[in-house]
Amino acid sequence: MSKILRIDMTNLKTSVEDSPPEYELLGGRGLTARILNQEVSPACHPLGKHNKIILAPGLLASSRFPSSGRLSAGFKSPLTQGIKESNVGGTAGQKLGRLGIKAIILEGQPTDDGLYLLKVTANGAAILPANNLAGLTTYAVTKALQDVHGDSVSVLSIGPPGERKASMATIACTDMNGMPSRQLARGGPGAVMGSKGIKAIVIDDTGAAPVAAQRREAFSEIVADYAKFMEENRGAGLVRNYGQMGGLLYLSDRNHSLPVRNFTAGTFEGASKIGGKDTIVFLTSQGSQWGLPCMSGCIQCCSNIVRDKEGNYITSGLEYETSALLGANLGIDDIYAIANMSRLDDAYGLDDIEMGVTLGVAVAAGLMDFGDSARAIDLINEIGQGTTLGRILGEGAAVTGRAFGISRVPVIKGQAIPAHDPRVENGTGVTYCTSAMSDHTAGPLIFRQPSSSEAVKASRQAQIDVAIIDNLGLCYIAVFERTYPIEKVTAIVNAQYGLDLKLEDMQNVGKTILKEERAFNLNAGIGPGADRLPDFFKEELLPPSNLVFDVTDSDIDSFWNF
Amino acid sequence: MSKILRIDMTNLKTSVEDSPPEYELLGGRGLTARILNQEVSPACHPLGKHNKIILAPGLLASSRFPSSGRLSAGFKSPLTQGIKESNVGGTAGQKLGRLGIKAIILEGQPTDDGLYLLKVTANGAAILPANNLAGLTTYAVTKALQDVHGDSVSVLSIGPPGERKASMATIACTDMNGMPSRQLARGGPGAVMGSKGIKAIVIDDTGAAPVAAQRREAFSEIVADYAKFMEENRGAGLVRNYGQMGGLLYLSDRNHSLPVRNFTAGTFEGASKIGGKDTIVFLTSQGSQWGLPCMSGCIQCCSNIVRDKEGNYITSGLEYETSALLGANLGIDDIYAIANMSRLDDAYGLDDIEMGVTLGVAVAAGLMDFGDSARAIDLINEIGQGTTLGRILGEGAAVTGRAFGISRVPVIKGQAIPAHDPRVENGTGVTYCTSAMSDHTAGPLIFRQPSSSEAVKASRQAQIDVAIIDNLGLCYIAVFERTYPIEKVTAIVNAQYGLDLKLEDMQNVGKTILKEERAFNLNAGIGPGADRLPDFFKEELLPPSNLVFDVTDSDIDSFWNF
Repeated sequence: MSKILRIDMTNLKTSVEDSPPEYELLGGRGLTARILNQEVSPACHPLGKHNKIILAPGLLASSRFPSSGRLSAGFKSPLTQGIKESNVGGTAGQKLGRLGIKAIILEGQPTDDGLYLLKVTANGAAILPANNLAGLTTYAVTKALQDVHGDSVSVLSIGPPGERKASMATIACTDMNGMPSRQLARGGPGAVMGSKGIKAIVIDDTGAAPVAAQRREAFSEIVADYAKFMEENRGAGLVRNYGQMGGLLYLSDRNHSLPVRNFTAGTFEGASKIGGKDTIVFLTSQGSQWGLPCMSGCIQCCSNIVRDKEGNYITSGLEYETSALLGANLGIDDIYAIANMSRLDDAYGLDDIEMGVTLGVAVAAGLMDFGDSARAIDLINEIGQGTTLGRILGEGAAVTGRAFGISRVPVIKGQAIPAHDPRVENGTGVTYCTSAMSDHTAGPLIFRQPSSSEAVKASRQAQIDVAIIDNLGLCYIAVFERTYPIEKVTAIVNAQYGLDLKLEDMQNVGKTILKEERAFNLNAGIGPGADRLPDFFKEELLPPSNLVFDVTDSDIDSFWNF
Repeated sequence: MSKILRIDMTNLKTSVEDSPPEYELLGGRGLTARILNQEVSPACHPLGKHNKIILAPGLLASSRFPSSGRLSAGFKSPLTQGIKESNVGGTAGQKLGRLGIKAIILEGQPTDDGLYLLKVTANGAAILPANNLAGLTTYAVTKALQDVHGDSVSVLSIGPPGERKASMATIACTDMNGMPSRQLARGGPGAVMGSKGIKAIVIDDTGAAPVAAQRREAFSEIVADYAKFMEENRGAGLVRNYGQMGGLLYLSDRNHSLPVRNFTAGTFEGASKIGGKDTIVFLTSQGSQWGLPCMSGCIQCCSNIVRDKEGNYITSGLEYETSALLGANLGIDDIYAIANMSRLDDAYGLDDIEMGVTLGVAVAAGLMDFGDSARAIDLINEIGQGTTLGRILGEGAAVTGRAFGISRVPVIKGQAIPAHDPRVENGTGVTYCTSAMSDHTAGPLIFRQPSSSEAVKASRQAQIDVAIIDNLGLCYIAVFERTYPIEKVTAIVNAQYGLDLKLEDMQNVGKTILKEERAFNLNAGIGPGADRLPDFFKEELLPPSNLVFDVTDSDIDSFWNF
């Protein structure tokens, strides 16, 4: 993994560069942050020619380590106006890793308003005209490209909202079955790819193969250790059998941190119908499949395929956040309706999290009622089709709140709050405040921390650890959430690359990533004062725990003392 | 002027407080900044219960000094998400001054979604139900209140967009003819007043009178000096005869800093039809009046009344910014169409500047063509009536750009750039970047400064001087733009209040105001990195000068070294 592909969309030229030595320990999220800081003016318009979107597999993408093939997209976000990284499973990360591609930098902007296809192979990259793909859903464009380029390629694509540069637009990535069900979702990467005139990217790794570890024996040992850990670690069977959605019932009925009806409660009476064991047993009894990998070699297997009662494919990768935000947060307890909503989101290329929170605000605006999944589907279609109302909703919860004069809006730094209520999950709340990502995935802490300062401390360590994991392209669920130790993660890198890094070296990489992201945002004009949750999280008691988010501003500001 | 009226809209209670000694030298803009910093959490939602809107006449409002009755509104802005002050002529400031009211603090939020009227008299304040006024234009509500409370009261009101909390909503204030033609316009004060459930404020100063100066002789002398200066100062006759709109032709044909067709040129072929001597001679020949005062005692007299050819009143106070942005910036050269658009803006309570820039972006979005005033009027009506498209446009240029995926948007800190192109007016450009107000009125410098560092220096001094003027409630046009010296402004304050302030003391007041505004914004999360104009001002040559905005980022950042 030593090549950087630079795709100049202004001149429609591609070039291959050697990755400079300073990028040696960087991949995925860490590499995108470094390149953005070096090459992009933080004050630029997110949809203008000066923004770039960087696609980078993690440092371990070329390896045979399980769950190491996640692909990062880094860019200045039209939603947050700051730096954003989003990462995804599926097949693209591994293919890029095997092709030796450390990053694809998409830059410039076509002067002709045309739509283009980028094709990446072992021979390099080519920009091809793709006006014929205009207006297609991600499912349609993926199928069209598989018909031409073969079923084994990876396809990254945007739907019509991405072409229109809607701020909640995703880049849909193909899963192991060739379906565009995995989303680079958060922060509007689809809008930025759309602003570059790129409808889709085809990655064909024909002729490439995983790269053997430099220290084969050590590598085999650490793989075996990880596999054993995953078998023995608490919850192994639960995850395998019920995936992430399995945890929804716990978050509702025990942890009380589920977002319910626009974040007005932490527990949902319909929780057992949209998550937890019973829901999954029911779905699998009707023909759905659970316990599937989202990328080759995964032993976590928290993915799924949801089929309707006639056996027709609806969607894949129906996860906790989706069921929580398109379900509980909208008062919807019909799991098939939720699956259909998520399918629509994937087909249009829209972020389930931003969608669920936006529709919650739409309820406050009088545009729909809680529990009305038919109306919710209508509203998703408005966004997909780009109606005037869809133009508002497609900009996400913050803009929807503005357009309808709503002051109670669950957003931070312009982006929807994910499905972990910070009133209970105070450590996750600190992550929302301090991370440039403002996502739970940047440092999730399900369990309440004992104090304000402990919440900050816990969030800091979680964010450093997750940054390390995201740098390597590892799945944070399969590593961080399963509590596989970061010391051992260091051993993986050492074995693969023949290095002698210590835990402290890895920690320093993690810290550097957080600080580089922070630097970008400061230079973009997003100061520490923006590290604040909306007032209602601090004032409205969340039933049934009756907690508020009570981490103090000064504790939050102390986060950066490292 | 020693009383502060506190209006608690949550409990529907009013109270009168003595102004604390620390507010002695503060009025208008300076007082609003101080109170906001002391009482409002910078992180609060602009439309939520924690925001406040402070109405404060300047320190000289109770005096008999000419052009000293401007009224400031200070608030956290839904448009910029930062602190904002807007000030206005008309009759309200003087009445509040004479009533001894230093500030009205509107706080809290009704729990019943009701609409209220605030009545202020010599006996204090009362909150009255006003649901019957819902949906009325500012002209209609003003007339209705004058019918009940008398023609001599001042009325401050919002239109339907303010009730809906649209970010470009103004507070309309009555002029000397009782028409709601004067707008507290910038930054969305109408939205914030709407969020407090206040449809209108009636100010009845029956029984009150101007306060005589402590040093009568000195006061008479300085008034005489000012009057003589205004007669002898260059341009006296021009301003009296042609007002601010008179200058449009100069800005187009000589200065080349007029915004034309969405800021793509600095000169407009139709300029002589929408500004300059010929236009005003034509309008007055058709029954319009020029050279009118906007407040009692004014000797600047740059206001006007525009009538159609049948003699019917269209609007009053048709000014440069209006004609530039609703005219030249939209390629419209029909002065009566512009007057009708401005009348509509006043009637709905909408900001001409934000409107003109937003409609320029609407052209880029394909919603209208340049020169099509009928379509422009349709779009203003969409906002006034709150259609779905109007919900987008009513949020201003930045949100309109987002909704339609436009990356070339003339805004800074979320607010539309006024009618002084910073590529020519580089000092005004520095003011846009550094002022928390981001308005030309915070430090206008029509003439190009010789260098990047000179532009910063000139903007700094202009901003300090204007802050002093805004603190006193003086008209910046009648003082700053006419170059009446700040030493002499100091003498006015000393004479009125029996003080012995030095120029340096006044300068310190001005500096403190700028720094307090800056502090609010930093605490609201708006950092120095936000002090940047959009890229296109730095890259697109502005014909015919072919200049770009070339003040360096480091020079801009040096602004705060004082």
